Amino acid sequence: MSLAFHREQASGPARRASMTLPHGVVQTPAFMPVGTLASVKAVPQSLLEELDTQIVLANTYHLYLRPGHEVVRRLGGLHRFMAWPRPILTDSGGFQVFSLNGLRKVTEEGVQFRSHLDGSAHFFSPERSIEVQTALGADLVTMFDECLEYPADRGRARQSLDLTMRWAERSRRRFEEAGGRETGQSLFGIVQGGMYPELRRESAERLTEMDLPGYAIGGLSVGEPRAMTREVIESTLQYLPEEKPRYVMGVGYPEEIAEYAALGVDMMDCVLPTRAARHSLLFTSGGRLNIKNRRFAEDQEPPDPVCGCPVCGRYSRAYLRHLAIAGEPLSAVLNTVHNLAFYLDTMRAVRNAISTGSLAELLAGMRARSGRS
Amino acid sequence: MSLAFHREQASGPARRASMTLPHGVVQTPAFMPVGTLASVKAVPQSLLEELDTQIVLANTYHLYLRPGHEVVRRLGGLHRFMAWPRPILTDSGGFQVFSLNGLRKVTEEGVQFRSHLDGSAHFFSPERSIEVQTALGADLVTMFDECLEYPADRGRARQSLDLTMRWAERSRRRFEEAGGRETGQSLFGIVQGGMYPELRRESAERLTEMDLPGYAIGGLSVGEPRAMTREVIESTLQYLPEEKPRYVMGVGYPEEIAEYAALGVDMMDCVLPTRAARHSLLFTSGGRLNIKNRRFAEDQEPPDPVCGCPVCGRYSRAYLRHLAIAGEPLSAVLNTVHNLAFYLDTMRAVRNAISTGSLAELLAGMRARSGRS
Repeated sequence: MSLAFHREQASGPARRASMTLPHGVVQTPAFMPVGTLASVKAVPQSLLEELDTQIVLANTYHLYLRPGHEVVRRLGGLHRFMAWPRPILTDSGGFQVFSLNGLRKVTEEGVQFRSHLDGSAHFFSPERSIEVQTALGADLVTMFDECLEYPADRGRARQSLDLTMRWAERSRRRFEEAGGRETGQSLFGIVQGGMYPELRRESAERLTEMDLPGYAIGGLSVGEPRAMTREVIESTLQYLPEEKPRYVMGVGYPEEIAEYAALGVDMMDCVLPTRAARHSLLFTSGGRLNIKNRRFAEDQEPPDPVCGCPVCGRYSRAYLRHLAIAGEPLSAVLNTVHNLAFYLDTMRAVRNAISTGSLAELLAGMRARSGRS
Repeated sequence: MSLAFHREQASGPARRASMTLPHGVVQTPAFMPVGTLASVKAVPQSLLEELDTQIVLANTYHLYLRPGHEVVRRLGGLHRFMAWPRPILTDSGGFQVFSLNGLRKVTEEGVQFRSHLDGSAHFFSPERSIEVQTALGADLVTMFDECLEYPADRGRARQSLDLTMRWAERSRRRFEEAGGRETGQSLFGIVQGGMYPELRRESAERLTEMDLPGYAIGGLSVGEPRAMTREVIESTLQYLPEEKPRYVMGVGYPEEIAEYAALGVDMMDCVLPTRAARHSLLFTSGGRLNIKNRRFAEDQEPPDPVCGCPVCGRYSRAYLRHLAIAGEPLSAVLNTVHNLAFYLDTMRAVRNAISTGSLAELLAGMRARSGRS
C-alpha cells in the first residue's frame, strides 16, 4: 500500500485525516514547506524535524537541472540525498517550465524550454516528468500539466484542459510502465480548467474516472483575485472524491490556508513563509511584521509572544532586526524557522478545531487578527 | 571573583585548565568562535550549544556601529541581546580600526576613523573602547592597543609599543572607574612589540607588573611568515605569568592552534573556520576539502568520516557540494557547523592529550594528515 488516507473527523466539509505514506504518516490538513533544490532554504533538516514538519515538497524542474535526477537516483533517491527520512512530494515541473516565458515552446508532445541557468535546451513531456520523478523517488508524484496563464478566454482554457487531460493519460501510463506504484510512489492528478467552473468540473470528473490515489488543484495563484481562488477551490472540491486526499498547489497566506482547509482541502504548499522570511517579513498571531522596521530596534518581545517555536522562545525582535539590518546570514535561518512554525502551528490549530468543532471560531479569530474580513 | 583560572594538568609548557567566568566555565586550551556582529555567522545559538561551544568572541568596533553599544546596554547587555548565556569575550576594536587604511588617523589621544559602512566620523580612545565594552558587558574585555603593521622597523615598533603601553594604563584606569571589575568583567592586557623579541619581552613584563587577570598576544597574523608567528608566541609566553590565562589573538589553522596550545597558549580565536565555510572550504582530519570540487558530486561519504558532528552524522559530501554549487543558504550553515566542530574537537583532543601525556603524538599525527611537517 503506497498511500492510505483515513478520515478521522469532520467539521462541515473540513476533515481531519491520517495519510500513511512509505516514509511516514502525515496528519492532514497539512502544510508542506517548499524545498526547491532539496533544501528548505536556510533551515537544517534537524530544525525542520524539531518543528514537526511532516512532509516537504521538492521541485522536479530544479532538481532535474541541479544536481540532475540521475545523480539523485545513483545516490539512493531524494530522501537519502537530502537526508530527509520523512515523506516528500515532487511537483511535475509543469509550473516552473510554464513560468519560463519566452524560453519555452509547447507542442502536443511536450514543452521545449531553455534552462534559466545557462540557456541550454531541454524537453519535458509527461513521460519525461514521470521518469525524472521516478528517479527522485518521492512518496507523492504529480502529473505533468499545462499551467494556464491568467487571464485566459474560454476557448484557450478548453484547449489547454484537453491537452492536460491527454497528458494525464500519458503520465499515468508512463507511471505504470516505470513501476512507480511497485516502488511505493503515488501519482496525483492535477485539475486544471482556468477560472471556468464547468471546465474545472469536467477536469475533476475525468480525473476521478482515472481512480488516482489523490488529486491536486493546479493553476491557481497565477494572478487572479483572491475571491476567485476561493470560488474555484470550493466549486472544484465537490467533484473530487471525498475518500481521497485533495491538494491545492501554491497557496497561500496563513488565514487563506486555514480557510481552504475549512473548505475540505487536505494539503497545501507555498513559498510564502520561506521567501517572506528572507525578505524580513514575519507572520505572527498579531499580523505581519517587517522585522527591519525601526520600531523594533529596542523591542525585547519575541517575534510572536504566543508562539512556542524555538525562535520565539529564545530571541527578541530587537535581535532579529539587528540581524536583518546587518545582513547576517542567521537572519534568514531564524526568520524562516519562525514563519514555518507559524504555518505548521496554523494547520495544527485547524486540525484541533476540526476535532473540537470550533473551526468557525478559529477562522473568525484569524481573520480579525490579520486585519482582513 | 570575576575570573578563576585553575591549572589542572600540564604536559611540558602546555597546560589544561578551567577558567571560571561569570557566565560559565571554559575548559582550556579553548578555541573561541568569532561572532563579529553578535552572531557566529549562519549558526543558530542552539547549534553552537550542541557543539559544546564554551565561549564566543564579539567585535567591539562592529557592535559600536551596529546596533550601537548603548542600544545593547539598554537591552540588558550582549548576553541577553544575542541570547547567549555562556561566556563572551570582546576585542577592543583596535584591530578593526587599524585595518581601516586611509580611513583613520592616530594621535596620542586615540584614533579618528570613518565607518566602513557610511563614512561617518568616529573616535576611539582607550577610554572609549572600555566604555563601549562595559556597555556590551562581556565576561572578558581587552585593552585598546595599536596594532602594528608588518613589516615595521625597530624604531617604529618601539614608538608603537610605548603608545600601546600608555594606552594600557589609560584602559586600566578607565576600567576601574567604570566599575567593570564590580560587574564581573575581567580586563586582559595585550602584548605588542612587532616581531622583535626584546620588545615583546618588555611589553609582557610591563603588562605583568599591572597584575591583570589575563594576557593576550596581539599583532600576529598580520602578514608575517608562519614560523615567525610561532617564534614570537614561544618567546613571549616565557615572560607571561604561568598562573594567568594566555590568549593569542586571530590564529590560525587547526594544526597551528594545536601547536600553539602545546607551547602553553590557553585561548585562541580566528575567523578562519567560519569564513572558510562560507567559501566552501571544509577542514577535516584528512586535510582540507573544497566541497565544490566535481570529485564530490556523487560522494556518499560524510565530509569527515571520523567526525562526530551533526553535519557529518547526517549529510554526504554530494549533498553539501550540491548546496554550495546551487548557492543554497543552508550551505553556509552546515559548512560552518562542521568547521567549528572540527576546531572545537581539535581543542578537545589537545586537552585530552595533555591529560594523557600524548600531545607530541597528537601533533605529529595532525601534521602528517594535514600534509605539512
